[in-house]
Amino acid sequence: MRTILVLTLALAIAACGRSGEEPAAIERPTHQLATTEAYDVGAIPAYAGDHAAVYDYIDANLDRHLAAIQRWLRQKSISAQNIGVIEMAEMLRQDFEDLGFAEAELVPTDGHPGVWGYYNAGAEKTLVVYLMYDVQPVNPEDWISPPFDAGVIDHELGKVLMARGATNQKGPQRAFLNALESIIAVEGTLPVNIMIAAEGEEELGSPNYPQIVDAYEARLREADGVLFPFNSQSPDGKINMILGVKGIVYFEVIATGGAWGGPSKAEIHGSYKAIVDSPVWRLIKALSSLTSPDGNTILVPGYYDGIVPPTVEESMLINAGIENRNEEQMLEMLGVNHWIDYKTGTDAVVEFLYQPSLNIDGIWGGYTGEGVKTILPHQASAKVDSRLPPGLDPDEALDKIRQFLDAQGYADVEIRKLSGYPASQTSVEAPAVQAAISVFSKYANTINVQPRIAGSAPFYQFTERLGLPLVPTGMGFGTGAHAPNEIMLIEPGPGTQAAGLAEIEKAYVDFVYALAEAE
Amino acid sequence: MRTILVLTLALAIAACGRSGEEPAAIERPTHQLATTEAYDVGAIPAYAGDHAAVYDYIDANLDRHLAAIQRWLRQKSISAQNIGVIEMAEMLRQDFEDLGFAEAELVPTDGHPGVWGYYNAGAEKTLVVYLMYDVQPVNPEDWISPPFDAGVIDHELGKVLMARGATNQKGPQRAFLNALESIIAVEGTLPVNIMIAAEGEEELGSPNYPQIVDAYEARLREADGVLFPFNSQSPDGKINMILGVKGIVYFEVIATGGAWGGPSKAEIHGSYKAIVDSPVWRLIKALSSLTSPDGNTILVPGYYDGIVPPTVEESMLINAGIENRNEEQMLEMLGVNHWIDYKTGTDAVVEFLYQPSLNIDGIWGGYTGEGVKTILPHQASAKVDSRLPPGLDPDEALDKIRQFLDAQGYADVEIRKLSGYPASQTSVEAPAVQAAISVFSKYANTINVQPRIAGSAPFYQFTERLGLPLVPTGMGFGTGAHAPNEIMLIEPGPGTQAAGLAEIEKAYVDFVYALAEAE
Repeated sequence: MRTILVLTLALAIAACGRSGEEPAAIERPTHQLATTEAYDVGAIPAYAGDHAAVYDYIDANLDRHLAAIQRWLRQKSISAQNIGVIEMAEMLRQDFEDLGFAEAELVPTDGHPGVWGYYNAGAEKTLVVYLMYDVQPVNPEDWISPPFDAGVIDHELGKVLMARGATNQKGPQRAFLNALESIIAVEGTLPVNIMIAAEGEEELGSPNYPQIVDAYEARLREADGVLFPFNSQSPDGKINMILGVKGIVYFEVIATGGAWGGPSKAEIHGSYKAIVDSPVWRLIKALSSLTSPDGNTILVPGYYDGIVPPTVEESMLINAGIENRNEEQMLEMLGVNHWIDYKTGTDAVVEFLYQPSLNIDGIWGGYTGEGVKTILPHQASAKVDSRLPPGLDPDEALDKIRQFLDAQGYADVEIRKLSGYPASQTSVEAPAVQAAISVFSKYANTINVQPRIAGSAPFYQFTERLGLPLVPTGMGFGTGAHAPNEIMLIEPGPGTQAAGLAEIEKAYVDFVYALAEAE
Repeated sequence: MRTILVLTLALAIAACGRSGEEPAAIERPTHQLATTEAYDVGAIPAYAGDHAAVYDYIDANLDRHLAAIQRWLRQKSISAQNIGVIEMAEMLRQDFEDLGFAEAELVPTDGHPGVWGYYNAGAEKTLVVYLMYDVQPVNPEDWISPPFDAGVIDHELGKVLMARGATNQKGPQRAFLNALESIIAVEGTLPVNIMIAAEGEEELGSPNYPQIVDAYEARLREADGVLFPFNSQSPDGKINMILGVKGIVYFEVIATGGAWGGPSKAEIHGSYKAIVDSPVWRLIKALSSLTSPDGNTILVPGYYDGIVPPTVEESMLINAGIENRNEEQMLEMLGVNHWIDYKTGTDAVVEFLYQPSLNIDGIWGGYTGEGVKTILPHQASAKVDSRLPPGLDPDEALDKIRQFLDAQGYADVEIRKLSGYPASQTSVEAPAVQAAISVFSKYANTINVQPRIAGSAPFYQFTERLGLPLVPTGMGFGTGAHAPNEIMLIEPGPGTQAAGLAEIEKAYVDFVYALAEAE
């Protein structure tokens, strides 16, 4: 009882700090690397295999391969708005069948269906391929080429495909299937068996992907590694390889008038604000209580507690990558003046990869049209996501936020969870990773192996649940994921070092063979 | 023990509110009435005139009069979205002409046109009529009868007209014109000259109304008073008469990425939140700094300084009205559990009429559609209005907000003013007001004369600029202004004491004669 009293008071006082100068404020932890040594990617020999007949086939069929990607991009598949999703799933299934897969079937789930494909090469090794066939919503008026035209347009980097999904993720995925098609056409079969487990809800946070894994779990466990086809290059040709992703919890925060005050049924005339509480102010105050004045430190007690600091392996990878990091280029591409707190170099990388974030994806309430409308809205809402490095569980994170809002008297402010899953991590020593690095060494001069990115994907299903290494891999460049004017480079112009479509497909061919040939 | 615990906690939280953004905390002033005496409305004799022939004409033509109101309501005139505005202005002009007005013309302004009408009765006295022909936007899906059908539907109070503009303000305005039409039809002319100065931008904050007054200023100055046709009754028949309005300043607050941080060109992937500042958080923090934790005290230095406290006349009016105030009915109608700080009675009235408010009419930014989209938006915006009692100038108020944001380091947060005008006040002793009270005394048992309401209208153009008394007057009941399911009572059902359309028009007839006959 006494403990509870002291604790509650401590919470109340902590709540105090946040609205002003932060007396006993929560500090965002600063993580340090575990070693100053750097991982030596150069020690891994470049892949030596030569599959000239397959490369020639790719060159001869490049227009048809490009058209296959465009066909995928022109088929809308916006999971959040349920636009074209079933049609896209069926397009995948049919493509698997046409490639000669022994199994090609839709996988029912509680949401959008998965798509399963199995190519039986009678091989010793089996590669699992994770595909996502859905894309983010669009605001077409923000695009310079319509998002579902999939036009090939001239860009300062060369010829690019512009479309929603161009790089996230249909472009590289269909390029990988083009590579498989080329091997089969030339060699009659593949050097590894392929299991494809595709979903149509990645952009929704993969709420039902576990059901797809459930359906094939025993077979998936027998595989040797998982590939996520991915455009890993910068325009300058540098490879960015990713061995992990953050987890995520995505939720809505909703303030509505009720017993605490405010209009509860509908908006009322704005002049009543003089004597009626406002749900919009309540949302603003509740949200504001969650972060420091700059919006960058999460003030929820215990939120930073579980973070796993950089391991020796991760630290060595970060040290190896830091000299090739082009910070100015990243900032320029994002239209950002500087990182938070003007961090740079290793500090910025560690901040990016080891901090949980609390981001407001959207906020809305009341009249948002043109001109003047004077109302006191009865409800206001926000969409919020928190990216979670290893050690932070999505449900525990959300519980802490709920408890903190309750402790501050915001029990009426509703939290509605939309999705959540934990982080995923693969070791650089895994054979599939070593195979990928050996192939990159053949094509690229600079290979940066990042321990993880700050983005999220449901890779934990493979790494944490099935114990398989997962490698998002591929040559090529793309940008604009989740934003207007998403592109994938198809044919590099003068000065651009990133691979074009032909080389992307040839490297996928090599990767499949490299994995088959690995010890 | 439990009590102490709760109390200590309450103290900690209360202390918290004080030590917030403002070191020397700003207190919302508490105003006191200047006297305990009450104004005696009963001392004004009821209007004794009898215009039986005109009343009979109204009864005989009621269906046609209702149709005239419906014709106005079915003509959309949403000023904020420029829908139907010109058509509505022309409808007014034609109606003035059809009524026999000597002058009936559109008045060009920098925005939507005004409409001027002059009826020359060769009379000694001239009544100015202020009309607004525009309405608020609608969300049709929230309405139980389409907002521009103007259907007569059954309601617990009787038969009502449901439409956007039913009570705010087309219904009572066209009812007044029906009254004029009836007098002219029976008597051949009116007992007073009429000047109508209508605008189509009241719901935009009347940005160009001064231009309409400019065009006729010398003639308007010679008038004897201004009428704003208005449904003044509660369902129980009580009259609420209004002698003043608050001013208003309406503005947008916009946070965009830039030199301070955050993405400046377009939204970026949400995972960058770990190292990129967020314009949404910035908007939330900037807005939050403007009010106390409950959102009800404005923390902008000097904001409360100029308020003119209740005068003796205003205090007497408030004292006279307080016993007839049905607080439960008001709360019920608004769907509100309690007023701020659980204020009641005189405290609530004084708070309502003498406090400036800071209200968020709307807020938006980022992804606001269904489901999950993970972006870091580059911009977030809010629409804000502040209602200003006499003594607070709109431009000074906005300057103070701007300076306060600047002082806190939010110079990058943009303020875009959309409209603003000061408060307006008329004395109960003005002849037009006394005439209105005498007519109400003939028809209603309870007359509550409020010194002002918390809402806004550009009445300062008449009261402060031209020195004319202005009286928003009329029998009848309506509700739902600026909200879904706006109605005006047309035919009271059993138990409803408010006037129906026929009585509303008869009282307008009496008002015109009472003004003509006043000393």
